[in-house]
Amino acid sequence: MELIPSNFREEIDIRLNKLRRIMESSGVDALLVAFNCNIYYTTGRFFRGFCYIPLNQAAIWFVIKPSFYKETSEIEYIRKPEQIAEILQKRGISLPQTLGLEYDDLTFSEIIRFKNIFPGSEFANGSIILKRSRMVKTDWEISQMREDGIHQSNVYSKLSHCYKPGMTDLQLQIELERELRLEGALGVSRVSGNLMEINMGSVISGDNADNPGPYDFTMGGSGMDPSLPVGADNHKIIEGQTVMIDMNGAFNGYQTDMTRVWALGEISDLARKAHECSVRILHTLEKYSVPGISVASVYEKAMEIVREEKLEDYFMGHSSKVNFIGHGVGIQLNELPVVTPRSKDILEENMTIALEPKFVIPHVGAVGIENTYRVTETGLENLTIFPEEIGNLK
Amino acid sequence: MELIPSNFREEIDIRLNKLRRIMESSGVDALLVAFNCNIYYTTGRFFRGFCYIPLNQAAIWFVIKPSFYKETSEIEYIRKPEQIAEILQKRGISLPQTLGLEYDDLTFSEIIRFKNIFPGSEFANGSIILKRSRMVKTDWEISQMREDGIHQSNVYSKLSHCYKPGMTDLQLQIELERELRLEGALGVSRVSGNLMEINMGSVISGDNADNPGPYDFTMGGSGMDPSLPVGADNHKIIEGQTVMIDMNGAFNGYQTDMTRVWALGEISDLARKAHECSVRILHTLEKYSVPGISVASVYEKAMEIVREEKLEDYFMGHSSKVNFIGHGVGIQLNELPVVTPRSKDILEENMTIALEPKFVIPHVGAVGIENTYRVTETGLENLTIFPEEIGNLK
Repeated sequence: MELIPSNFREEIDIRLNKLRRIMESSGVDALLVAFNCNIYYTTGRFFRGFCYIPLNQAAIWFVIKPSFYKETSEIEYIRKPEQIAEILQKRGISLPQTLGLEYDDLTFSEIIRFKNIFPGSEFANGSIILKRSRMVKTDWEISQMREDGIHQSNVYSKLSHCYKPGMTDLQLQIELERELRLEGALGVSRVSGNLMEINMGSVISGDNADNPGPYDFTMGGSGMDPSLPVGADNHKIIEGQTVMIDMNGAFNGYQTDMTRVWALGEISDLARKAHECSVRILHTLEKYSVPGISVASVYEKAMEIVREEKLEDYFMGHSSKVNFIGHGVGIQLNELPVVTPRSKDILEENMTIALEPKFVIPHVGAVGIENTYRVTETGLENLTIFPEEIGNLK
Repeated sequence: MELIPSNFREEIDIRLNKLRRIMESSGVDALLVAFNCNIYYTTGRFFRGFCYIPLNQAAIWFVIKPSFYKETSEIEYIRKPEQIAEILQKRGISLPQTLGLEYDDLTFSEIIRFKNIFPGSEFANGSIILKRSRMVKTDWEISQMREDGIHQSNVYSKLSHCYKPGMTDLQLQIELERELRLEGALGVSRVSGNLMEINMGSVISGDNADNPGPYDFTMGGSGMDPSLPVGADNHKIIEGQTVMIDMNGAFNGYQTDMTRVWALGEISDLARKAHECSVRILHTLEKYSVPGISVASVYEKAMEIVREEKLEDYFMGHSSKVNFIGHGVGIQLNELPVVTPRSKDILEENMTIALEPKFVIPHVGAVGIENTYRVTETGLENLTIFPEEIGNLK
């Protein structure tokens, strides 16, 4: 087996060259990649080891395990990272002046170990370089996410078949998880940081939407156990309440993020109005969000509509609110940019962002939708096409 | 809601005092806890924030989110960790001489941020202190794991009902995942480090057992996608082959780890012999492993039996082998001690360890079992009681 299949070589080179441009402007002359998501990004598969990317020479893959990849000049099999410096010197590659290491992704112990391998070097935060490169997707990456969106929509279309009268939120979630897996979901959603821990997504019904949690999710939910206070709490879905479905869209190394709402019977006018406002926000942002527009202004544009409709009290939470309406998505569920009023980012073509203007209506539940979009010259391309109105559980 | 319910106070105090004894012998006079698993360990629930444990004063919980816990003298609501030092000084608590921080669990960026909060302090690796405390369980923790073992056995007893002729490994896994969730599994297995990424466990059938992966699992499996090369690869379970079930046992903040094997029709004598050897190893270790015995000698005892039966070629992998036969288990799937020949640990009462002497038999698959045990004065108590022979899929 080739570590990098020959038909994937061009794709990897596009990414490495993009990384090199950011490295150069950051004053970094080599990048040592070790974090799982970044190994996948720089290689196209996950292996145990390291990808070493010099600014002006060919990249080298240091492989610990497995050892069945075809040997080529760009692969070195090693037992431990301490061998890297020696091998570089044997190859006549000078050790870096400033080496980028993944400060935001690897543990303190790991970074200290890597620093000790390069005693003469300065160091910089390589996580930022990788995050900025990954923020703008290649055509191939977008094709993966497009597939994710189709699979995720296929599963959402089965929701009303999954629901049986009398079900709890959790029971409905379990049937959806099974449908996702049968559709090909890998069963894991890679997330960044300790403030997102999730199984295969979130099903939030009724007032559980108003339970603020410790995590960085738009909707909290009190969950099933004090060790993991997030999501469904196993209460029965009742008449006049909504169920918000925000389940896993990871069918390959990438993922889409998509939310839809169903209701059991009639819900209040306020809840319907808020849902329509969410759809209106997205349709407005789909046109507004073009390359060159600031991410902060995307947030402000949404807030304008919320204020116009006088729905501030319910927007992005009721008892407790979050201060963003969207986020980049790709290999990880939460990537750059983060759509907050304080963002300094500017939209670029082929960024992929999930926008999720949601509302929490007391005694009804959560309403609103979320789509994953690609930024294009003419606005946002929706990768998660599925009816946007509130579905009927009956 | 109380952050620590009054009936849980004594349990938390047992843990904090155990931590203080290890802190004292490590020369650490305060511990700042921030990592999810350790927040759960020191609090009994997960919240966003920090638990600050001085050696000689009462612990303080610094809570960022959620803010609905009853205010008491031991809670301080904060917005960011930088407020911690100031609040300690206001309370007349002197800043630490040597502060323990979770070097093995938090990112480099997080640790640097925390170090800057305490400019006059020295620092030490707090992860080791927490790991050593968590290695020996309290009675309450063991009661949680005992419940996990019962739930996990309940699900394993449904395996033959989940299997339908013609199924692939993945299809069988999906039905088991559903049964686990219906039984109460939280859907997440907390693991330590980047070298374990897993959905709800592993179903390994036939020669997929001999596909070495990059991860730290005893059996690899090539998985469904290059981004996550582990576990089931969606091939049909065929006559004369085994299916090894090593699925998630996390039904509360703790988990058990348990493996059993089923076969479709007759399997080779070699495979049966190896399976019986695994059972024999466990039954021997159940008597052998008492407090005071070295963990390395537990490994050696297993190897003695493997050599006696001349099964070295197949033990812990065939094409590629791993060098351990078990590991601690608790809040995380992989805790201390690790049962390797190089371990320096000594067994203590109320350690909980998963022992998994497994074999890979070419053209048949994986055989052997895994149980999670508690170390007692008289040997190992099995927390995962379930028939140990090879089950029949027909």
